[in-house]
Amino acid sequence: MNTDSNKLLLSVDLAGTLLFAVEGGLAAVAANLDLLGVMVLAFATALVGGIIRDVLIGAVPPASLRDWRYTATAFVGGAIVFFLHPYIRQIPAGVIVTLDAAALALFAVAGTEKALVYKMHPFIAVLLGTITGVGGGTVRDVLLTQVPNVLRADIYATAAMAGAVVMVAATKLRAPPTFAAISGGLVCFLLRVISVWQHWNLPKAIAR
Amino acid sequence: MNTDSNKLLLSVDLAGTLLFAVEGGLAAVAANLDLLGVMVLAFATALVGGIIRDVLIGAVPPASLRDWRYTATAFVGGAIVFFLHPYIRQIPAGVIVTLDAAALALFAVAGTEKALVYKMHPFIAVLLGTITGVGGGTVRDVLLTQVPNVLRADIYATAAMAGAVVMVAATKLRAPPTFAAISGGLVCFLLRVISVWQHWNLPKAIAR
Amino acid sequence: MNTDSNKLLLSVDLAGTLLFAVEGGLAAVAANLDLLGVMVLAFATALVGGIIRDVLIGAVPPASLRDWRYTATAFVGGAIVFFLHPYIRQIPAGVIVTLDAAALALFAVAGTEKALVYKMHPFIAVLLGTITGVGGGTVRDVLLTQVPNVLRADIYATAAMAGAVVMVAATKLRAPPTFAAISGGLVCFLLRVISVWQHWNLPKAIAR
Repeated sequence: MNTDSNKLLLSVDLAGTLLFAVEGGLAAVAANLDLLGVMVLAFATALVGGIIRDVLIGAVPPASLRDWRYTATAFVGGAIVFFLHPYIRQIPAGVIVTLDAAALALFAVAGTEKALVYKMHPFIAVLLGTITGVGGGTVRDVLLTQVPNVLRADIYATAAMAGAVVMVAATKLRAPPTFAAISGGLVCFLLRVISVWQHWNLPKAIAR
Repeated sequence: MNTDSNKLLLSVDLAGTLLFAVEGGLAAVAANLDLLGVMVLAFATALVGGIIRDVLIGAVPPASLRDWRYTATAFVGGAIVFFLHPYIRQIPAGVIVTLDAAALALFAVAGTEKALVYKMHPFIAVLLGTITGVGGGTVRDVLLTQVPNVLRADIYATAAMAGAVVMVAATKLRAPPTFAAISGGLVCFLLRVISVWQHWNLPKAIAR
Repeated sequence: MNTDSNKLLLSVDLAGTLLFAVEGGLAAVAANLDLLGVMVLAFATALVGGIIRDVLIGAVPPASLRDWRYTATAFVGGAIVFFLHPYIRQIPAGVIVTLDAAALALFAVAGTEKALVYKMHPFIAVLLGTITGVGGGTVRDVLLTQVPNVLRADIYATAAMAGAVVMVAATKLRAPPTFAAISGGLVCFLLRVISVWQHWNLPKAIAR
C-alpha cells in the first residue's frame, strides 16, 4: 500500500475516533460529570473497543496506545464537547445517526480485519470485529451505571456483526481486501441507518 | 493422556460452558433484553472468567477464543434460552443449583490447574481458579447494573476458593493430578450444594 | 540500586497497597457486603489499577500477581477492615485524606515510571500513571454500581495526572530519576490535599 492510501486510512480512522469521542463526551455532559469525566468517557467510548480486541489477540501495547494520535484525538473530541456542547446538541439527530453508523462500520471492519491478520478463526474474527465496534459504548454505559444500550435497543451490535460476517465471507472467498472491507462496511452502515429509519428492533424472548 | 480422556475432558468442559451460558441467558431474559443481549450475557457468563484468567497469565489469545467450539457452545446456550426459556424455567431449582455447583467446581479446578501450569505462586493460583469460576457471573451482573451476587450472597466464590485451595495443596503434596483435581472439585461441589441446602452464609461485618 | 533502598521501595509500595485495600474494604462494609465482598473490594481497589496498566503495556503476569506479597497485603487490609472497622471509622477524615493522597501520589508516580521503562510515549505514560492511581477505585465503584467518584468529584484523578505530567517532564529534561519521582509525587500529593482543604472542583460543562 502506498503512503497516500495509508494517510487516507489513518485520517478515516481518526475521524471515526473523533466522532465516537464526541458521543461519549455528550453522554458525560448529560450525566452531569465534570471535565475529567467528559475526557474519560470520550476516551472510553472511542478507544476501549479496540483496546479490548488488541488485548485479546495479544497485540499489546494496543494500537491506540502505541500511536499517541489516537488518544490525543479522543481527548480533542472530549474538549470539543466540553466547550461547545450547546452547539453540538443542535446538530440534527439524523446527521448524528448517519455519522455514527459510518464510524460503527469503520470500527467493525477494521477490527475484523485485524483479527483475521492475527489468524483468528473466522467465527472469532466476527466476534472481535463486533467488540471493536460496540465495546467502547458498552464500557461507557457501565461507567454511567446504565444497562448497556446495545444489549436492549434496536439494531446496533447486530449491524456491526452483519458487516463483520460479510467481510469474513468475502475474504474467505478470496475477494480483494478492499472489496471485502467496503462490502462489509456498507452492509453495516446501511443496516444500521435503515433500521433506525424503519424502527426495526431485535425480537425479545416472550415471557410466558 | 490418551485421546479418549482428552475427548472426555473437552466434553465436560463444553457441558459446563453450556450450563453457565444458559444461566446467563436466563438472567438476560429476566432483564427484558433482546436476542443480542441474551447472546452477550450467555457469552459473558460462560467465558469471561476464563478469558480474564488467560489475559492475566499471558496466555493470549485466550483458550476460548482459540477454539471456536467454546464460543459456539456459549451461543447455543443463549439460543436455547431464547427459544425455550418457558420450559427451562420449569426445571426445579434443586436441579439448577446442583448442575451449577458442578460447573463451578469444574471451572475452579480447571482454572487453578492452568495457573499452576503457568508457574503462578500457589496463592495466586487459588485466586485465578476462583476468578475462573465466578468472573463470568460477576461481569454479567455488572452489565445488568446489579451489585455482583457473589459479593453479597451465601457460599459461592468461597466454595470455588475452597476447591482451589484443596487442589493446590494436593498438588504441592505430590498427589496424582487426577486425584488433586477430583478432590478439589468435590470439595467445591459439596460445599456449594450443602451451603444452599443448609442456608449457610458468610458473616458480615457488624456495623456498630 | 542497593538492597536497602529496594527494601524501602517495596515497603512504601506495600504500605500504599494496604491503605487502598483498607479504603476498598470500608466501601464494602458500607454497602453491607459479606466477608468475601470485603476481600474482593480490598483487592480490586488496591491492585486493579496496576493490573490494568501491566496488561496494557504487555507486562503479564502483572507485577502484583507475580509477587504474592501484594495480594496478601490487600487481603490483610480487607481482614483488618472486617474485624476492626468500628475503630477504623473513628480515624479523623483529615488523616484518611492525607494518607490516601500519599498513596495516590505513590501509585501515580510508580505507574508513570513503569510505562516510561516500557518505552511508552510520554503522553501515554501520563495516561497509564493516572490509571494506576485511580483504576482500582473506579472498578470498586463499578462493582458497587455507583458512577465512579473520580468522574464527578473534585480534584483526584486530576492530581494523579498532574503528578504524572511533572514526572514525565522532569524525566525528559534529564533530571535524576529520584528527583523526577519525588517532584511528581509531591505535586500530586499537595494538589490533592490542598484541593480537599480548599474545596476545589473541576468545572462542569454548563448546560445551556
